Amino acid sequence: MRQYNINLDPKKIPDAWYNIGADMPEPMAPPLHPGTHEPVGPNDLSAIFPMGLIMQEMSPDRYISIPGEVMDKYLLWRPTPLRRAYRLEEALGTPAKIYYKNESVSPSGSHKINTAVAQVYYNKAEGVRELSTETGAGQWGTALSIACGMFDMKCTVYMVRISFEQKPYRKSLMEAYGGRVVASPSNETQIGRQFQADYPGTTGSLGMAISEAVEVAATSGGSIKYSLGSVLNHVCLHQTVIGMEAKLQMESVGDYPDFVIGCCGGGSNFAGIAFPFVQDRIAGRSKVECVAAEPAACPTLTRGPFAYDYGDTGKFTPLMKQYTLGHNFMPPGIHAGGLRYHGVASTVAHLKHLGLINAVALYQNPCFESSLLFAKCEGIIPAPESGHAIRAAVDEALRCKESGEVKTILFNLSGHGHFDMTAYDAYLRGDLQDYELDEEVIAQGAASIPIIE
Amino acid sequence: MRQYNINLDPKKIPDAWYNIGADMPEPMAPPLHPGTHEPVGPNDLSAIFPMGLIMQEMSPDRYISIPGEVMDKYLLWRPTPLRRAYRLEEALGTPAKIYYKNESVSPSGSHKINTAVAQVYYNKAEGVRELSTETGAGQWGTALSIACGMFDMKCTVYMVRISFEQKPYRKSLMEAYGGRVVASPSNETQIGRQFQADYPGTTGSLGMAISEAVEVAATSGGSIKYSLGSVLNHVCLHQTVIGMEAKLQMESVGDYPDFVIGCCGGGSNFAGIAFPFVQDRIAGRSKVECVAAEPAACPTLTRGPFAYDYGDTGKFTPLMKQYTLGHNFMPPGIHAGGLRYHGVASTVAHLKHLGLINAVALYQNPCFESSLLFAKCEGIIPAPESGHAIRAAVDEALRCKESGEVKTILFNLSGHGHFDMTAYDAYLRGDLQDYELDEEVIAQGAASIPIIE
Repeated sequence: MRQYNINLDPKKIPDAWYNIGADMPEPMAPPLHPGTHEPVGPNDLSAIFPMGLIMQEMSPDRYISIPGEVMDKYLLWRPTPLRRAYRLEEALGTPAKIYYKNESVSPSGSHKINTAVAQVYYNKAEGVRELSTETGAGQWGTALSIACGMFDMKCTVYMVRISFEQKPYRKSLMEAYGGRVVASPSNETQIGRQFQADYPGTTGSLGMAISEAVEVAATSGGSIKYSLGSVLNHVCLHQTVIGMEAKLQMESVGDYPDFVIGCCGGGSNFAGIAFPFVQDRIAGRSKVECVAAEPAACPTLTRGPFAYDYGDTGKFTPLMKQYTLGHNFMPPGIHAGGLRYHGVASTVAHLKHLGLINAVALYQNPCFESSLLFAKCEGIIPAPESGHAIRAAVDEALRCKESGEVKTILFNLSGHGHFDMTAYDAYLRGDLQDYELDEEVIAQGAASIPIIE
Repeated sequence: MRQYNINLDPKKIPDAWYNIGADMPEPMAPPLHPGTHEPVGPNDLSAIFPMGLIMQEMSPDRYISIPGEVMDKYLLWRPTPLRRAYRLEEALGTPAKIYYKNESVSPSGSHKINTAVAQVYYNKAEGVRELSTETGAGQWGTALSIACGMFDMKCTVYMVRISFEQKPYRKSLMEAYGGRVVASPSNETQIGRQFQADYPGTTGSLGMAISEAVEVAATSGGSIKYSLGSVLNHVCLHQTVIGMEAKLQMESVGDYPDFVIGCCGGGSNFAGIAFPFVQDRIAGRSKVECVAAEPAACPTLTRGPFAYDYGDTGKFTPLMKQYTLGHNFMPPGIHAGGLRYHGVASTVAHLKHLGLINAVALYQNPCFESSLLFAKCEGIIPAPESGHAIRAAVDEALRCKESGEVKTILFNLSGHGHFDMTAYDAYLRGDLQDYELDEEVIAQGAASIPIIE
């Protein structure tokens, strides 16, 4: 009997997250204050984040305990299954062994909730009563709405207006979980009214929505804080539970990956599956190759310079050292909305800079092609973002088919695509474009990068 | 540490389905030929079903082995988790223990695929190359599309035209898995063209779609067979894997239910969770109370007479002894589309007639209210159908709160509601009606019942 699902005893969920900052062979460049260009300290962040998360953001500790109340929530869906994709291997005719960690089984349908419950917990512990955030495609807003519901906190989600109008089901889902969803730019904030005056009829952008959510927190006098779904150290930290579980699960069947693959936008899902394996590589215990799969339409790690840049279009955030296409780079409208980010987490960027991880850029049509094959074999319709990880895994498996090598491939299925059927519909009708980026567009974006060393 | 998820070792999935027909204390009335009113034999059904399934339909055996190839597919998502709803118990303030079997984790998002893979297997074993079926809400069409994809069979789904137009994502989902979806009534069948001529501009009905799917099979010369997603004995049989697993899982934590609850339309989901427990009651081993939760808008078991009636509006099917509101009864447009069926499985009806199971009829607004509470506590947005089981379970739990009794409640979460967000949206806006059935409508339906003894 084949063992498709490799389960883990709930008692074996790691009791601490892994902080890769503690193991970096060279120190990371510090984030800089957007005004002074001096390294930021805890107090610079305290207007919008609780101190518990700021301390994690800057922690030198290798492991950070998962609080009991967070673990109690994790137990609603964790440990997630690791699955051996026997049927996909057969369909590809590859000698490679393909495993995937199935984060799509979470309440929000993606990995995002791993950090959402942690962030809500630390905010609540410091007396915060409401969180504000932005969402584009909706995965993050959904996760934070669920987490706030679990802890009886209020949640306001500024949703990019075009998504708000085009994805009414995502909005309903957030509302069903108790979130308040506001189309952005809105009339609720000063910056939102300003955006509407400056750009009449605008359909919004993630950069605008971030600015609104941050303003609400910064002007609340402490009762409302801001919450971010990717990029920051503490967000990547919370996601490491994925890779730590996967390692135990692979151990339990006597295996270890040659390749670990995650799709990469802001970087937290890639960080989650990869960092616990990168730890082994840094320690000299393995030669594992970790691959960040990004879209060719937004090739941050494969085309951008390693430079200091803002995290948002509005230039409110600290400057962070990262690979970046420029904070005003506007990627084409691919369906993997979660991967349309000009920059990437500093931790991921630093590892790429040190040659400890790799990256590939993929077009969306081959990603959807592999996603449909995956769906037929494994039964799960993947999120378009996760489709990039699947494609990268399939490409490695096909290389093994050519070379005859028996490599072991692990990828993260970060989420399901139940709310992305318009994208599949467009693919099946042959309506999807594979965007070639214009060199001029790349140059325009690069021109907005403030400090290239 | 709380054990929310009660997993089962995959090696312990039951290796046989349970046929409750073998344990009925009184024999069931046989199905009758629609023309002659004589009991039907295997040959009467062979034009549209394969002999393997016909033999199961009429089998006297208590257990029927699950073939290895079906088990290999089951292992992609089975055993499904049993979950203890600690958080829901707390939110209700009840001393009752609430468990639920989570069938929403399947590839199709509902229990329907348990019978879909079995039906496809038996058809393929007899050389059938294509299956035809109908779908209303889309759960069944999705399940059969996935199952056909897994066995490399063709699948054509006649989808009620109004659903085809209103639920484009369901259609895309079936197509993503390789199904061909046709709006019904269509021009592909004689009866479809007839329906369009007789009812110009019709938006279709399940009865019409069944007629088209049956015609395609009956006139194919054997290469195409018809597949039904509920009601029949062999469909209920295949679903018993749910209850058999649940029994082992409850045993593993030293518990046994006082109440077993499933929502009930055609009856297969209720049969799946309940029959293995009814077996205990028939054998005198338990006093378990099994409750079928049906919509007040379509109160088959609670209002209909126990009588012979057709399974479809077009009167093509055999006459089956059942509770029925009449084959031309047209229920109001509640959102639990899977529960809008005029009749019920003969096995379920017979058990109700013998007093071995109970039924309750519920309005949709309280069901959505409980579903949202469930979503906030357990993280999962339930299908509107499953919401009826949740409401019935909540009502039992609230009775325990009043009486102080510590009862154990088990219900089946038959599916998730990711493709039903319009319904939640309507509920949240306060737009949902609780339909009071007109006595005249009940009387009109009853007048179409051919044989009331």
